[in-house]
Amino acid sequence: MQIIILAGGEGKRMWPIQTDKCLIPFLGKPLIYHNLLKIRENLGTAEFIIVATPQNKNQVSEIAQVLGLKFSVVAQQQPKGMADALLSAKDLINGEVLVVNAEDILDLTKVETNGDVLLRGLKVNKYFPGGYIENVKGQNSKVKSIVEKPGEGNEPSDLVKLVADYFKDGKKLIEYLEKVSSENDDVYEMALGQMIKDGLDIRFSKYDGVWLPLKYPWHILDIMKYFLDKIETEDKVLIEEGAKVFEGAVIKGPCYIGKNCIVGNNSIVRESNLEEGCVTGFSSDITRSYIGANCWFHTNYIGDSVIEGDLGMGSGAVLANLRLDNKTITIKEHGIDTGRSKLGLIAGIGVRIGVNASTMPGVRVGSNCLIGPGVVLKQDLKENKKITLKQESFEIEDYQASQTSYDQFRDNLK
Amino acid sequence: MQIIILAGGEGKRMWPIQTDKCLIPFLGKPLIYHNLLKIRENLGTAEFIIVATPQNKNQVSEIAQVLGLKFSVVAQQQPKGMADALLSAKDLINGEVLVVNAEDILDLTKVETNGDVLLRGLKVNKYFPGGYIENVKGQNSKVKSIVEKPGEGNEPSDLVKLVADYFKDGKKLIEYLEKVSSENDDVYEMALGQMIKDGLDIRFSKYDGVWLPLKYPWHILDIMKYFLDKIETEDKVLIEEGAKVFEGAVIKGPCYIGKNCIVGNNSIVRESNLEEGCVTGFSSDITRSYIGANCWFHTNYIGDSVIEGDLGMGSGAVLANLRLDNKTITIKEHGIDTGRSKLGLIAGIGVRIGVNASTMPGVRVGSNCLIGPGVVLKQDLKENKKITLKQESFEIEDYQASQTSYDQFRDNLK
Amino acid sequence: MQIIILAGGEGKRMWPIQTDKCLIPFLGKPLIYHNLLKIRENLGTAEFIIVATPQNKNQVSEIAQVLGLKFSVVAQQQPKGMADALLSAKDLINGEVLVVNAEDILDLTKVETNGDVLLRGLKVNKYFPGGYIENVKGQNSKVKSIVEKPGEGNEPSDLVKLVADYFKDGKKLIEYLEKVSSENDDVYEMALGQMIKDGLDIRFSKYDGVWLPLKYPWHILDIMKYFLDKIETEDKVLIEEGAKVFEGAVIKGPCYIGKNCIVGNNSIVRESNLEEGCVTGFSSDITRSYIGANCWFHTNYIGDSVIEGDLGMGSGAVLANLRLDNKTITIKEHGIDTGRSKLGLIAGIGVRIGVNASTMPGVRVGSNCLIGPGVVLKQDLKENKKITLKQESFEIEDYQASQTSYDQFRDNLK
Repeated sequence: MQIIILAGGEGKRMWPIQTDKCLIPFLGKPLIYHNLLKIRENLGTAEFIIVATPQNKNQVSEIAQVLGLKFSVVAQQQPKGMADALLSAKDLINGEVLVVNAEDILDLTKVETNGDVLLRGLKVNKYFPGGYIENVKGQNSKVKSIVEKPGEGNEPSDLVKLVADYFKDGKKLIEYLEKVSSENDDVYEMALGQMIKDGLDIRFSKYDGVWLPLKYPWHILDIMKYFLDKIETEDKVLIEEGAKVFEGAVIKGPCYIGKNCIVGNNSIVRESNLEEGCVTGFSSDITRSYIGANCWFHTNYIGDSVIEGDLGMGSGAVLANLRLDNKTITIKEHGIDTGRSKLGLIAGIGVRIGVNASTMPGVRVGSNCLIGPGVVLKQDLKENKKITLKQESFEIEDYQASQTSYDQFRDNLK
Repeated sequence: MQIIILAGGEGKRMWPIQTDKCLIPFLGKPLIYHNLLKIRENLGTAEFIIVATPQNKNQVSEIAQVLGLKFSVVAQQQPKGMADALLSAKDLINGEVLVVNAEDILDLTKVETNGDVLLRGLKVNKYFPGGYIENVKGQNSKVKSIVEKPGEGNEPSDLVKLVADYFKDGKKLIEYLEKVSSENDDVYEMALGQMIKDGLDIRFSKYDGVWLPLKYPWHILDIMKYFLDKIETEDKVLIEEGAKVFEGAVIKGPCYIGKNCIVGNNSIVRESNLEEGCVTGFSSDITRSYIGANCWFHTNYIGDSVIEGDLGMGSGAVLANLRLDNKTITIKEHGIDTGRSKLGLIAGIGVRIGVNASTMPGVRVGSNCLIGPGVVLKQDLKENKKITLKQESFEIEDYQASQTSYDQFRDNLK
Repeated sequence: MQIIILAGGEGKRMWPIQTDKCLIPFLGKPLIYHNLLKIRENLGTAEFIIVATPQNKNQVSEIAQVLGLKFSVVAQQQPKGMADALLSAKDLINGEVLVVNAEDILDLTKVETNGDVLLRGLKVNKYFPGGYIENVKGQNSKVKSIVEKPGEGNEPSDLVKLVADYFKDGKKLIEYLEKVSSENDDVYEMALGQMIKDGLDIRFSKYDGVWLPLKYPWHILDIMKYFLDKIETEDKVLIEEGAKVFEGAVIKGPCYIGKNCIVGNNSIVRESNLEEGCVTGFSSDITRSYIGANCWFHTNYIGDSVIEGDLGMGSGAVLANLRLDNKTITIKEHGIDTGRSKLGLIAGIGVRIGVNASTMPGVRVGSNCLIGPGVVLKQDLKENKKITLKQESFEIEDYQASQTSYDQFRDNLK
């Protein structure tokens, strides 16, 4: 079987995180490394076709090589959707294929093969903005249609189609993709629709393993938790080479401390992932947070936050993670309810946060922003912005200290 | 002897503390529990008549029952003062009586009985707004009159009358209370005056035991200290069932840690009373403070504060307890000088304080208020108010980070 | 030989530090104590002539006495420069003399004596605003002239003249100083110039020992480091009598903890000098800082700061020491680049800093100032000023707490 890995996703909804979704590191390795490794372990003999981007092609190839896979990499020239991605690889496809996303966490220990096409549906308890599987009446495993984002209340079923699609004949899939045309980004779905119309045997089965997509930056926290839980040391703490833990510091697993990190005196790190080169400084509290490489802190609270990397925080700055009114945290721009009761800052690369500054739950800050000392940040900041406390907020007056004076001080010392 | 316990006090000056004065818990038990227990230990055979309110009657009865007292409870229907309270219980009074407040801390190991009426006077060193005992010239233990709040400089003596009044004939007291009429809240004092006029033998003696009234909320701190000092463990720390103390935490006695409390990593708790269900979080410092039930903290300083309960504080918030000009702390509304050089926040039930917020010494905050992140609160807040830092205080500009950029960051990692 | 110690320097550029430069204490002793001690150890038989001020004369005499020196002290009546200082001592000068500043850190293990006058030049790598030695062409150790502050690019050599000047005949030096007249503060330099003109044998040699002048307050940090490095205990920590170190506190050498200091629970002190009577409070971080006597802290970060003494800081206040844009720190008033990438606050005597306040790198604050709670101080403050956050920065609204109420709270407790 050929496993087609779609590693060309754009990640529009990932702002302010810029790192290619499949390259975001967990436990010191890019996400795609973990995912390819797992497939190799389960389906060792498969052949991999990786559809990359011009930008990540080299890095992805390197990873596949390190893992000793039988693989090919093609670059999709523009991020023009799933059908275009598969067509980029058409010359390599020649038999049974399984199509999966490079960044999704999926349990692929067993690949079901059934009918001409076998789709996998995940039972959801509340509305999810994906494609829902509608079954043929009376036929529990036959697909009638895939309804894209039907809107809450209009779902044809409680099964959301994952990207883990099996095709008995990969060449036929390519034919259909070439035949169909659309002005929108739905060629793949239309091709599936056409197959149904043409009477192909399109089935689905219920999937009840782990499934963690990566659409919004806070999904990084779920994926982090997944990987942290896999740490197998007794205390569920993995500390890499060169990392130092100073006196009074506490690391509560599950936790990953990357290469050359320094967990400073009296700091606590809990249920978090620190990529290489991070420094907590003195008396910081990093809890349930994803911290990319080369971040430095100093007496900070970082709760339920996603920090891409190279962030610097002055002493006393706090990333708040809990609304005082106990509401769940929504992202203002699109009114998306993250469903999380706790969510801290989401920060791109190179952000600087001044001493005693505070950021509010769920705020997103673009790369290279500066949040001045003492600022209370309640809103998102686009890239390359600076927010400061206006100097007019302060007033200076003459002042007569009631008891201390230079002479008195010196007298006291005598 | 009958001990009449006045448990119907209104607590007007206790704002923002709402809990019935005699029900405020110390070491996990209501104040009246401690006081009744002490009287029972000293005067085991006495009969108790408790004048309660319609609201606290049941709870007070329960406490008396648990203590195995011989008691009756009557409810005063309106909080109309001491005479009305006693009249509420008139049908129960039939012999020698001792009248005390439910909430006052008093040393009652020995009850003096002398004359028709024996009052107790506490020697004070500075003006106290209470009733002063004036003695009959040349007769050191005979009362000439009680002068209510004479004003500083006009005191007829240095003895303030406590509420620990002995009457040889309780029925006669009731007669006098019924006879006297007044438009003000001074019927009891007028009745005493009438007794003097009528030639009854009204005496006083000097009281030099402990006396801690509960008129203002900061008196809770004095009463707390009294109970903490009574803890008899070697380190003077009492930790209740279900409480946890994490690594690096320090508890310096005298200290009470209530049921199911969590003293988090690297926190310090000193000379404080934490009622049940409190959580200090990471690296908090709680010093000389009364903390009611179900409060949660996280990297906070709480000094010399009175927190009624259910308070939540974000990381980095500070309750300042010391004026930078070293003056003693006055309460602005009434210009009351608390006489304390250190006093923090006084907070009602359900207050929320944002990250990096600060409250100034002696500030009072009503229940269910929200103090926003970064706020410096210098004034009292009535119930159900929210104070926030205006967003106009900040300005946003374009910013060019001098050295960091995404590419550079990624390059550095290679 | 006579060693002339110039202890009358004015320290104009030391603002806001008021303490006489040579009396600033390090490791519990005034700077001049250390310097005199070192000379005594190396040049035990020398006679000292100390030119003091009317103000410091007594203290300086006492120090010389304690050290058992053979010495005389004269007071220069006005701070009128080096020539005037020497003339104040003219009656005492009678042979070979070496002229040094009381406050400069210099390596005087060996005093070179050569020619009529021997000057010492320190090789500098970048422009230093001092006097440069110009040598006679072709004669490597003959002085042609001293060029005062030539300006960057106009230096006649890379050798800056230190104040460590040897004169074979002290009386002749006095004659020259009396002969020359100038309206500016350069009589000493003119006298040297005249000696050259008159054909005296004026030589120089290169000095390559340690040289630490004290012109600007941040030089205190360099001098502190010099003394800390001299601590000879195994961990390079010197803790004086009466000092206490509480549980969880860490002291990382080199470090000096003065008499009766208290290093509070969970605090860290690194590479710092704390003069007597300082209290770190709970969980403070004092790093690479000079802390004069009687300062108190409480959960603060003090980085690379110079605190003259008697400073008080509320909980959560931070002295920032690093620009978020990574630039070196300049002092605004004169546009002086300190050359330091890290520099915190420079504070005179008696400063008070409120809870959660922040000061920006390199800010200078005059004595007896008050920096209010929550203030972000970006500018210098002259003596006796108060800066506060305006109350108009806040707004108060009605607020309905979403979930908590007094009744609910009490119910929960049942």
